[in-house]
Amino acid sequence: MTRRRRKAARGHRAQKAGLPPGTPIYTGVEAGRPIRISVLDYDAEAVSLHEDVRPEDLARFRDSGRTSWISVDGVHDVALVQKIAETFGLHPLVVEDIVNVGQRPKCDNYGDYVFIVSRNLSLDAETGEIATEQVAFVLGKGWLITFEEHQPTLFGAIASRIAQGQAQARQKSVDYLLYRLLDTIVDNYFVITEQLGIKLEELEDRVVANPGRGTIESVLSMKRALIEMRRSVWPMREVISWLERGESPLLRADTRIYFRDIYDHTIQLIDMLENLRDLVGTVHELYLNAVNLRLSEVMKALTLISTIFMPITFIASVGGMNVLFPGKEQLSGWYGALGLMGAAALGMFLWFRTRRWL
Amino acid sequence: MTRRRRKAARGHRAQKAGLPPGTPIYTGVEAGRPIRISVLDYDAEAVSLHEDVRPEDLARFRDSGRTSWISVDGVHDVALVQKIAETFGLHPLVVEDIVNVGQRPKCDNYGDYVFIVSRNLSLDAETGEIATEQVAFVLGKGWLITFEEHQPTLFGAIASRIAQGQAQARQKSVDYLLYRLLDTIVDNYFVITEQLGIKLEELEDRVVANPGRGTIESVLSMKRALIEMRRSVWPMREVISWLERGESPLLRADTRIYFRDIYDHTIQLIDMLENLRDLVGTVHELYLNAVNLRLSEVMKALTLISTIFMPITFIASVGGMNVLFPGKEQLSGWYGALGLMGAAALGMFLWFRTRRWL
Amino acid sequence: MTRRRRKAARGHRAQKAGLPPGTPIYTGVEAGRPIRISVLDYDAEAVSLHEDVRPEDLARFRDSGRTSWISVDGVHDVALVQKIAETFGLHPLVVEDIVNVGQRPKCDNYGDYVFIVSRNLSLDAETGEIATEQVAFVLGKGWLITFEEHQPTLFGAIASRIAQGQAQARQKSVDYLLYRLLDTIVDNYFVITEQLGIKLEELEDRVVANPGRGTIESVLSMKRALIEMRRSVWPMREVISWLERGESPLLRADTRIYFRDIYDHTIQLIDMLENLRDLVGTVHELYLNAVNLRLSEVMKALTLISTIFMPITFIASVGGMNVLFPGKEQLSGWYGALGLMGAAALGMFLWFRTRRWL
Amino acid sequence: MTRRRRKAARGHRAQKAGLPPGTPIYTGVEAGRPIRISVLDYDAEAVSLHEDVRPEDLARFRDSGRTSWISVDGVHDVALVQKIAETFGLHPLVVEDIVNVGQRPKCDNYGDYVFIVSRNLSLDAETGEIATEQVAFVLGKGWLITFEEHQPTLFGAIASRIAQGQAQARQKSVDYLLYRLLDTIVDNYFVITEQLGIKLEELEDRVVANPGRGTIESVLSMKRALIEMRRSVWPMREVISWLERGESPLLRADTRIYFRDIYDHTIQLIDMLENLRDLVGTVHELYLNAVNLRLSEVMKALTLISTIFMPITFIASVGGMNVLFPGKEQLSGWYGALGLMGAAALGMFLWFRTRRWL
Amino acid sequence: MTRRRRKAARGHRAQKAGLPPGTPIYTGVEAGRPIRISVLDYDAEAVSLHEDVRPEDLARFRDSGRTSWISVDGVHDVALVQKIAETFGLHPLVVEDIVNVGQRPKCDNYGDYVFIVSRNLSLDAETGEIATEQVAFVLGKGWLITFEEHQPTLFGAIASRIAQGQAQARQKSVDYLLYRLLDTIVDNYFVITEQLGIKLEELEDRVVANPGRGTIESVLSMKRALIEMRRSVWPMREVISWLERGESPLLRADTRIYFRDIYDHTIQLIDMLENLRDLVGTVHELYLNAVNLRLSEVMKALTLISTIFMPITFIASVGGMNVLFPGKEQLSGWYGALGLMGAAALGMFLWFRTRRWL
Repeated sequence: MTRRRRKAARGHRAQKAGLPPGTPIYTGVEAGRPIRISVLDYDAEAVSLHEDVRPEDLARFRDSGRTSWISVDGVHDVALVQKIAETFGLHPLVVEDIVNVGQRPKCDNYGDYVFIVSRNLSLDAETGEIATEQVAFVLGKGWLITFEEHQPTLFGAIASRIAQGQAQARQKSVDYLLYRLLDTIVDNYFVITEQLGIKLEELEDRVVANPGRGTIESVLSMKRALIEMRRSVWPMREVISWLERGESPLLRADTRIYFRDIYDHTIQLIDMLENLRDLVGTVHELYLNAVNLRLSEVMKALTLISTIFMPITFIASVGGMNVLFPGKEQLSGWYGALGLMGAAALGMFLWFRTRRWL
Repeated sequence: MTRRRRKAARGHRAQKAGLPPGTPIYTGVEAGRPIRISVLDYDAEAVSLHEDVRPEDLARFRDSGRTSWISVDGVHDVALVQKIAETFGLHPLVVEDIVNVGQRPKCDNYGDYVFIVSRNLSLDAETGEIATEQVAFVLGKGWLITFEEHQPTLFGAIASRIAQGQAQARQKSVDYLLYRLLDTIVDNYFVITEQLGIKLEELEDRVVANPGRGTIESVLSMKRALIEMRRSVWPMREVISWLERGESPLLRADTRIYFRDIYDHTIQLIDMLENLRDLVGTVHELYLNAVNLRLSEVMKALTLISTIFMPITFIASVGGMNVLFPGKEQLSGWYGALGLMGAAALGMFLWFRTRRWL
Repeated sequence: MTRRRRKAARGHRAQKAGLPPGTPIYTGVEAGRPIRISVLDYDAEAVSLHEDVRPEDLARFRDSGRTSWISVDGVHDVALVQKIAETFGLHPLVVEDIVNVGQRPKCDNYGDYVFIVSRNLSLDAETGEIATEQVAFVLGKGWLITFEEHQPTLFGAIASRIAQGQAQARQKSVDYLLYRLLDTIVDNYFVITEQLGIKLEELEDRVVANPGRGTIESVLSMKRALIEMRRSVWPMREVISWLERGESPLLRADTRIYFRDIYDHTIQLIDMLENLRDLVGTVHELYLNAVNLRLSEVMKALTLISTIFMPITFIASVGGMNVLFPGKEQLSGWYGALGLMGAAALGMFLWFRTRRWL
Repeated sequence: MTRRRRKAARGHRAQKAGLPPGTPIYTGVEAGRPIRISVLDYDAEAVSLHEDVRPEDLARFRDSGRTSWISVDGVHDVALVQKIAETFGLHPLVVEDIVNVGQRPKCDNYGDYVFIVSRNLSLDAETGEIATEQVAFVLGKGWLITFEEHQPTLFGAIASRIAQGQAQARQKSVDYLLYRLLDTIVDNYFVITEQLGIKLEELEDRVVANPGRGTIESVLSMKRALIEMRRSVWPMREVISWLERGESPLLRADTRIYFRDIYDHTIQLIDMLENLRDLVGTVHELYLNAVNLRLSEVMKALTLISTIFMPITFIASVGGMNVLFPGKEQLSGWYGALGLMGAAALGMFLWFRTRRWL
Repeated sequence: MTRRRRKAARGHRAQKAGLPPGTPIYTGVEAGRPIRISVLDYDAEAVSLHEDVRPEDLARFRDSGRTSWISVDGVHDVALVQKIAETFGLHPLVVEDIVNVGQRPKCDNYGDYVFIVSRNLSLDAETGEIATEQVAFVLGKGWLITFEEHQPTLFGAIASRIAQGQAQARQKSVDYLLYRLLDTIVDNYFVITEQLGIKLEELEDRVVANPGRGTIESVLSMKRALIEMRRSVWPMREVISWLERGESPLLRADTRIYFRDIYDHTIQLIDMLENLRDLVGTVHELYLNAVNLRLSEVMKALTLISTIFMPITFIASVGGMNVLFPGKEQLSGWYGALGLMGAAALGMFLWFRTRRWL
């Protein structure tokens, strides 16, 4: 399972080698279910939610004059994505990037619209591995299309808040909606970072108490998870920095302060991730130290036993010689031998103490 | 205790995931005590100190024409912080950042006012861990609000100096007051850095004298403390650099030289921290070397004992054989065996000396 | 074989030391076959393919007014390359760079034409080493010359697509053709990166299951392959970044978005390579840990055996002494000795258990 | 002694925490001797040297129209430094930085004068530790004040050269004097760097010949000394770079080429220090390798002895059994046993040879 | 020999400490031979070679209107260098830099002339150490002076090519001559880099086949050689980059493309050096791994022998006891003991096999 997911994350660009550009090919794991399109059309006064919209009906939302959020659930049907793209006049390279789900977060300004790729993360509680999912945004004048690789569970809460008319978003333009969605993704990064932090503390306790065979695997899998997170968060920071600079007229001046806020959050995230990385490093060193100490103790035990029994066994062997030694076949020999042995053992023991090896 | 503090430092942003932005939630450890507001209102001629001011009475200080320092002790009562914010016309994101106490030092210019987050540090003498507390500043035209997470012990001395009329601050504008407070925080960093330096010297002595089980934990906890300090000092430097550039009209030209002075101090602090980090590294290597040397000595002892007793025990065993060997059951055998043993032991010993293993 | 290839990659610049500049010398492995020149001459209406064109016939393609792709297969005949260069008015330094096949990817703007060096990679499936081949481009007004060190298998598919009239390239200018060729090279990098990724996963499985003698060689050869890839991909990024900025009038504004697309791909490649490097690092650590654990287990076995047999062998030796010890030549001695030995062995075993060394 | 010096270097900023800024406190080790002020007043025609000048008499040198070098020997008398500062109109922060002797080299432009902090180094030949001393400069129009923490031995030669009229400085303006003094400090860095280089070569010889207990301490103390030097040289480079850019009217255009020269020297110094750091790293690795090799040799000796004597001792033990074995109590048993033992020892020895362990 | 050369490379700046600037002192190893000056005076039509020119005769070449290459062989006679400098109006700091032969490559623009310091490298085939020699250039209007520390073997070929009229240089201006000389130096770097590459491959083979005592010294000496090369190549890159930007009117626009070519070469060199450094790193790891494996094998042998002989020796010792054990003094005891011993040895061997320690 883990292996398969990792493969998927790699993105299978290799399938595309040799094909002409603009040939969009879905590079993720094939999902059987059909793609569903939902539209949330709203302004300050009214909201209308349309589910299972057909792609040919999208044109009217584009020009509705109200704010339209077109949420596309799944990108494995390339033809359908292309049809949507044509309706909104998107460039073929945008379609390619939408269905090529191994993309790194990025931001392209096409003038009439802005194309944004982001990644949503989830942590597999058992294996401790990070799974990532591509979420693409196209921000136009009055409309925002979101393409999600898997179920759009992420944005559910926001959609229902808007639908119920509680959200501030109703009073604001469509770039504020984009902000809300990106903010949700970044907040989710915090959740995962904290879960990793808790896992790390458990790991540290385990290393101190009983470092075993699986410890090093846990440490390394933690390192891997942090590498994976960095790969999403760092380019995300650049994306949000671009939005914050507001270089497109689609981004209003009064929304910039909100992007500035997410920007601060990504900086803080990077800070926390660097911190976790340092802490994983110290846990790794603790583990190596524990393993070393244990081996060192075993070696000391071996040395102690050897140095005590070797001399006294030697004395016993001398006593077993078939030569005419003093005290042979007599009690005096027995007591003499016992005395020598005791003295040798004690001497060795005291020598060890002096050297502080015990 | 330690664990809990570390958790608190993490900031609990996870609680916020899914909530709309502008929903301020206190992310620190809940403190039972009520929030207290004190106001110090002064100009060159007069000073008036008001304690336990109600938030609805703050408006008159805002417009008093004199310099007003509003000190808020505790930020766990979100509603109260919001009330203060409304009085001074602060943006909802500012309120969020004030009560979200895990923030990284930063500086946001909102035009009419400047919002600054800084962190005050303290060193737990016993565990050697760094505890951090968020201190937020809002600098407006003629007023400065400070929000402290815990007791405002930090600024006590400055407040009483101003109240007693001794301070230069009386003659200067409100940005000079901000400088004084930030300077106090940075000076406190120096105190902690020196304490860490003293701890490190003790640790070094301990490593050289008697490296034991707890040493590596102390080294790693020192590393952690330094990481924690860097996390506060580096962004602090950026904050002060922004203030020094004086990009807001709230910062007067003649105060810039003072911020330049703190800026130099943070540079020096970073320098000292990097130095300490290098020194911790060398202590770590000293420790590893000491452990290695000790194991090596133990192994040498084992080898010495084995190589001396194995040959002579072999000779004794030969003497114990029930075959017709020369000197059997005779004194000549006894003396011959003793001679051989002595020669073997001496030979081994000399071999070791030649190889310089002893 | 491997060694020879690596040597070739080094580029034999040493041959050139002391010679005047502008003396082009082929620095690759001498190939016996003749150099073949093919020309694809096309516009939106018509295509004509000319094979085995003589260099003196190239002038008419230069001025044909249509898009001409001159593909030169092999650069080991310096005189021939010089003849082509003269036809198109190329600088002697360009000729030198074309035949000096150890070049690093780079991009030089000569005003009338742009000279680009890129490297095509292939992975030797068996040894896991990366072989590189230099591919040089000269982009002029209406013509593009490609110089390939070995067989031009790389561009075959594109040429036949254009010849069959299916390709978009027919409608576009010559810089789009350049884009298509560079895109093919970069796509090929993805193929190799994925192959390396798969090899790494196999290696990780092998390390966990049975770390042997060859493992470390595989890890280090993987590191080397990644270093080799980085050396090609990093400067390639700069080349494409230059093309994307479109600083030459030969690069049309509407082609820039395509170069931007390859640029994003190179960024993603660098990201994947960094990731692989980190993963190779963790596999290396896993291996070291496995080797350590194995040695540690062997040492524990030695210690266990020694500490159990030393005491009981001692008891037996005492029983073999030729002195008057209690129970001599009696059954009571036999049973007493057996009892003592059993107690000693059990005691040692229990001591080990208590210390958790078993 | 060493410890105390290191403490002094730390700068004791902690004493200052809580005090208002502009409260200058001397942070070095208290020196009993009084502060002495010498003045060298010269132009191209005449020189006059004044020793033990009282601070209240300095005003006339400030306005003398000739070049005045005011050399202050010691900064532990804060009141006196303040009096000098008032005479020359220096900012309170400058006074603070002069007496706070733990400063990092820096350069502040106050318009009418330029304030420069530098550090003079000396190497304790015995312990190999670097001691640092703060040297502060204030460059005004026609005057230069130098504040040295300890005896002003450094500048003696320059002063006497000027007094004897040999120096070029007589013809040049006061910034040339500043250059001469800074050049002396930087030249002194070269002396220390070379001494460290010689120490390192000795250390390398020692490591190769006989790596003992103190070696690692020497290596680490060398590392520390290099860290200490970097801390002074790096910021010094920035100071000189600022002077070379000549951003103050006090720095004449024709002096810039001289500062450019010192700048090159600092670059070269940094280069030499980096080189030394790399070399210390290789010496460290040599040491670790030597220790490892030695342990490995000891272990091989143990193994050799054990594997040779264990089999033959076993044979002897068999010969000592009180059972009816062939050759018991006969010469045939004796010769048979000797033959077996010889064969076993030889076999073991040959096995080792085959495996190349000997 | 090696030691002396390394010392020379350090440059003996220490000799200069305290002396006034502009006091040029030769800092290399004193060479007994006299300094020889040769002049090559040429234009497109004619060439004249003058050997052993006296410094007072150089003025006429300066103003000859043709291109004059003044080659100075040796810089140990400071007075002579000063005389040349006066003839061409060079600044005293230039003279200082010429005779102070430990300089790092650099480039100073003095307006009328450009001063360039470069370093020529040679590899001692036996010790594998890099020796460096300073080569200084002064480029003026129509003349170029080269100062070489040792014999001017480097430029011989170029001089004779120009003298024989074959070289392109005859048609070009003097900056082209500078280019040719720098190109020769950089080409020489390639030769050395390739020699190092070949040495490294040999070393790798040696490490795999038979890692011995000298291996680590070779690895570390290789590291040192690479560090030494980097120190020359990196600043060289900056020098050539400056020349390529052509910021002096002495550098013609049409020569810039040639400097651009050397610039590309230095970039490629740096790339190759970084590559070699990585490869040295992997060889180092291979060595450490081989040493570890060998120790591990020795320990396994010890463990195997011990665990097999300890039990059977114990059985023999029991058979030697002077108590009434079953089978005493009988053949049944003999066969029983033999059976037990065989079973024990076999059991131990099988246990090892199960654990895969053999």
